Amino acid sequence: MRATVMPKAHEVRIENIPDATIQAPTDAVIRITRACICGSDLWPYNDGPNIEAQRMGHEAIGVAQEVGSDLQRIKRGQVVIMPFVNSDGTCLFCEEGLPAACVHRGFFGNGGELDGAQAEALRIPMADGTLYPIDVGEDDALMPSLLTLSDVLGTGHHAAVTSRVREGGTVAVVGDGAVGLCGVIAAKRLGAEQIIIMGRHEQRIALAKEFGATDVVSERGEEGIARVRDLTKGFGVQSVLECVGTEQAMATSMGIVRPGGAVGRVGVPHYEAINGAQQMFYDNVIVGGGPAPTLAYIDELLPDVIEGRIDPGRVFDRTVDLDGVPDGYRAMNEREALKVLIRP
Amino acid sequence: MRATVMPKAHEVRIENIPDATIQAPTDAVIRITRACICGSDLWPYNDGPNIEAQRMGHEAIGVAQEVGSDLQRIKRGQVVIMPFVNSDGTCLFCEEGLPAACVHRGFFGNGGELDGAQAEALRIPMADGTLYPIDVGEDDALMPSLLTLSDVLGTGHHAAVTSRVREGGTVAVVGDGAVGLCGVIAAKRLGAEQIIIMGRHEQRIALAKEFGATDVVSERGEEGIARVRDLTKGFGVQSVLECVGTEQAMATSMGIVRPGGAVGRVGVPHYEAINGAQQMFYDNVIVGGGPAPTLAYIDELLPDVIEGRIDPGRVFDRTVDLDGVPDGYRAMNEREALKVLIRP
Repeated sequence: MRATVMPKAHEVRIENIPDATIQAPTDAVIRITRACICGSDLWPYNDGPNIEAQRMGHEAIGVAQEVGSDLQRIKRGQVVIMPFVNSDGTCLFCEEGLPAACVHRGFFGNGGELDGAQAEALRIPMADGTLYPIDVGEDDALMPSLLTLSDVLGTGHHAAVTSRVREGGTVAVVGDGAVGLCGVIAAKRLGAEQIIIMGRHEQRIALAKEFGATDVVSERGEEGIARVRDLTKGFGVQSVLECVGTEQAMATSMGIVRPGGAVGRVGVPHYEAINGAQQMFYDNVIVGGGPAPTLAYIDELLPDVIEGRIDPGRVFDRTVDLDGVPDGYRAMNEREALKVLIRP
Repeated sequence: MRATVMPKAHEVRIENIPDATIQAPTDAVIRITRACICGSDLWPYNDGPNIEAQRMGHEAIGVAQEVGSDLQRIKRGQVVIMPFVNSDGTCLFCEEGLPAACVHRGFFGNGGELDGAQAEALRIPMADGTLYPIDVGEDDALMPSLLTLSDVLGTGHHAAVTSRVREGGTVAVVGDGAVGLCGVIAAKRLGAEQIIIMGRHEQRIALAKEFGATDVVSERGEEGIARVRDLTKGFGVQSVLECVGTEQAMATSMGIVRPGGAVGRVGVPHYEAINGAQQMFYDNVIVGGGPAPTLAYIDELLPDVIEGRIDPGRVFDRTVDLDGVPDGYRAMNEREALKVLIRP
């Protein structure tokens, strides 16, 4: 079968590799019908992958093609959403709604423990606890939006939940990538009144406004912080969705959160410490977030997608087949494409 | 009138200073009937005060002796609890239950904006928004416990709230000072099932057990972390009450919190950054806390004190008059006394 591998920085190849097969009775093999490229795939694309010939991709919808003999929930032929981590469905973290911290957690692709989803097929360990079956055809028109339940919509929602977005609240979203835009959707969905998007890419900002952003701040650093304060009577916002992961984005987040407010981090952090521990203390600021328990959020988010109240699939502005994946990485890296959908 | 001043490190004096007087129509002057020495008073005692002849003390119960002409709520002769910060009672933070972040916030004593409570009397700005009147006599037997509503009980409760202590939850309290012990009371009160106290002072540990601690970990650093993990099936605890404020205490807190758990910081931080930002992210750990909105917590905590369900006044193990204050500092600093009550 064919799959995406990244042998080194700035090099993405489609290679023939051994077919995905069942290795344990709790495995499933899914035929990938939709996958995509994530902003976090660009970290190894620029800095070099973690392992040789790294398998890439951690977001997908597929069809269960082979199911292990122990599976109860997942049946052959089902269309399934694949979250970016696997989970056993039974450990205390899974039971508490945090499958992203499952004691058997493995990350798909990107140097994680499991194979990648930018491929024709993929083995899913503990498929009963990992996959979410949905009752739609594999080429349903909603596929782009459904695909966001695999990662970006759930991740934007996690940023909104962990930053405690509330009815009537004030929100800033740091980052205008696909996760940031889904953060706008999530904040709007949870009733925020003011949603400030921080970014400078014209088309993305336009989409953010359609999703519900009420204000735009394009300045960065101290200037950006001052602008957000100007927009919030000098206080800052109650909720900051940190959707980038750089030290600068985190510094901005801490600069614009108001006393008693919260920062929800969902950008994979490329820094070792959270600075400003004293200011954060004296302002009673909360910092939370991490890998989103996307599986646990699907129950809540799916009806809004199915019934068309939200349309997160609009973050995809380009579609490629497997052969188009290397150029898709280039296009996203150059910010020519917002998010690339893959139809293997 | 007489008041406690700290001219330099390791020097505490009782001096004659001008009487406290009404300076604005929203002021009150209270005659201090009970005050105490706080663990946080020991930071300037050891490191040197922030300002020359620093006035000390931020916890008190008193009797309203003079009331400004604009006051509606506070009447002359009332017994009142004084939280460690003032608050106007009307700003958006006060209205949202976070008076400790009031836009007119000032800290009492300890180098703060306002005068100190280890004195015969004290001017209270914005007294209507700051003070909490209670319907007891000034020498009521419950005075020690009522005094803890000024700071330590509310602060321990804030650590429990911000670390999200829940019914049946697992908790660790870092620090066996008066705040840590009140944290044990608060965790027990909120229904925690397992409460691990981390400390090594025999009498304090004994009191922690009486307050509801189920386990004791006396080891520090990596060894202490390993012991807490042993006590929690290897996972760590859901809630960590960080009641010390040192970098080591924070490192311990981050080492013992389990995925999806929270650290509530109430120890005044003596570090600039929160380390372990990546582990914190991958474990979806929440860090919150800060100066407690003690005023806002009194409504919830007072009935338990009045009706004797909790007895936080037991943290006081020594009582002095004003002349005994300097030796009280020494005794607390040498850990000879847990917390010193002052009857001016």
